[in-house]
Amino acid sequence: MSLTMYQASIPVFTRALNILSTLLNKAAAHAEENKLDPETLLNTRLYDDMFSLIGQVQRASDAAKLGTSRLTAIQPPSFADEETTFPQLQERIAKTIAFLDTVKPEQFDGSEEREIVIKLRGQETKFTGQAYLLTFVLPNFLFHVTTAYDILRHKGVVIGKMDYLGF
Amino acid sequence: MSLTMYQASIPVFTRALNILSTLLNKAAAHAEENKLDPETLLNTRLYDDMFSLIGQVQRASDAAKLGTSRLTAIQPPSFADEETTFPQLQERIAKTIAFLDTVKPEQFDGSEEREIVIKLRGQETKFTGQAYLLTFVLPNFLFHVTTAYDILRHKGVVIGKMDYLGF
Repeated sequence: MSLTMYQASIPVFTRALNILSTLLNKAAAHAEENKLDPETLLNTRLYDDMFSLIGQVQRASDAAKLGTSRLTAIQPPSFADEETTFPQLQERIAKTIAFLDTVKPEQFDGSEEREIVIKLRGQETKFTGQAYLLTFVLPNFLFHVTTAYDILRHKGVVIGKMDYLGF
Repeated sequence: MSLTMYQASIPVFTRALNILSTLLNKAAAHAEENKLDPETLLNTRLYDDMFSLIGQVQRASDAAKLGTSRLTAIQPPSFADEETTFPQLQERIAKTIAFLDTVKPEQFDGSEEREIVIKLRGQETKFTGQAYLLTFVLPNFLFHVTTAYDILRHKGVVIGKMDYLGF
């Protein structure tokens, strides 16, 4: 045994959320420099029925907060999904990180065996906490961070893979 | 302690590579049904200087294989990056999974403390194995699987989030 459930979740979430914050700052600066309407970037989606950039940030926030909540049985804060601007998205990210920062490693004790039941495709699906983290929470959370990055790249914002990885 | 380095890597890679294989099968079927040239899909990229769908699959394969190799000091197989068709990408994925399947849990023993040095932005960067897996390998690997999905969605292939998650 060499990793804790805490190590494989909270620091991974906060790191990627801080990276997402930096990417959004670069996107806002890009819009200003190029005299683009920030709303265009914020509402871009890669396909009609996919989430916009705003939606990707909201879902990344939710994935981190709800994943943590289900693994630790801590009540998560509720966010209203009303963000429409870059500063509001930054606030959403900051509030999410502030919540994650309150969670202590020992609150994940035993979470690997905790039974977690969520509805997927209309069916109740049972996970151990460990399977939930590795097959659902992390791939889902990183999906939304990656897709936010992909939307910004698609619109020509000058960022690169090392910015996504945070190096 | 509740997770092993093996659990947080090999089964995560093989699960996502199998999912990627299924997504590519759906993409190939979509091209056939809609009388689209499969090459168009295979060479789609979200921005001029990003990898195409082919490139995303090759990089996902590399991320899994090289991450595993650095963590275990096992020599990885070498793949030539010559894929140009869906069947060839399927073969690349199958060969990657076949390699991962040969790795035994005990070959990851001690990998959390192994010193790993890679060049990032031209600088040698030192990681413990644990930091390398959580801050580099997993986010990088899932980046390429997600971006392959995003390319397919962007081109109208009928797949959804549960297909990406494998449920």
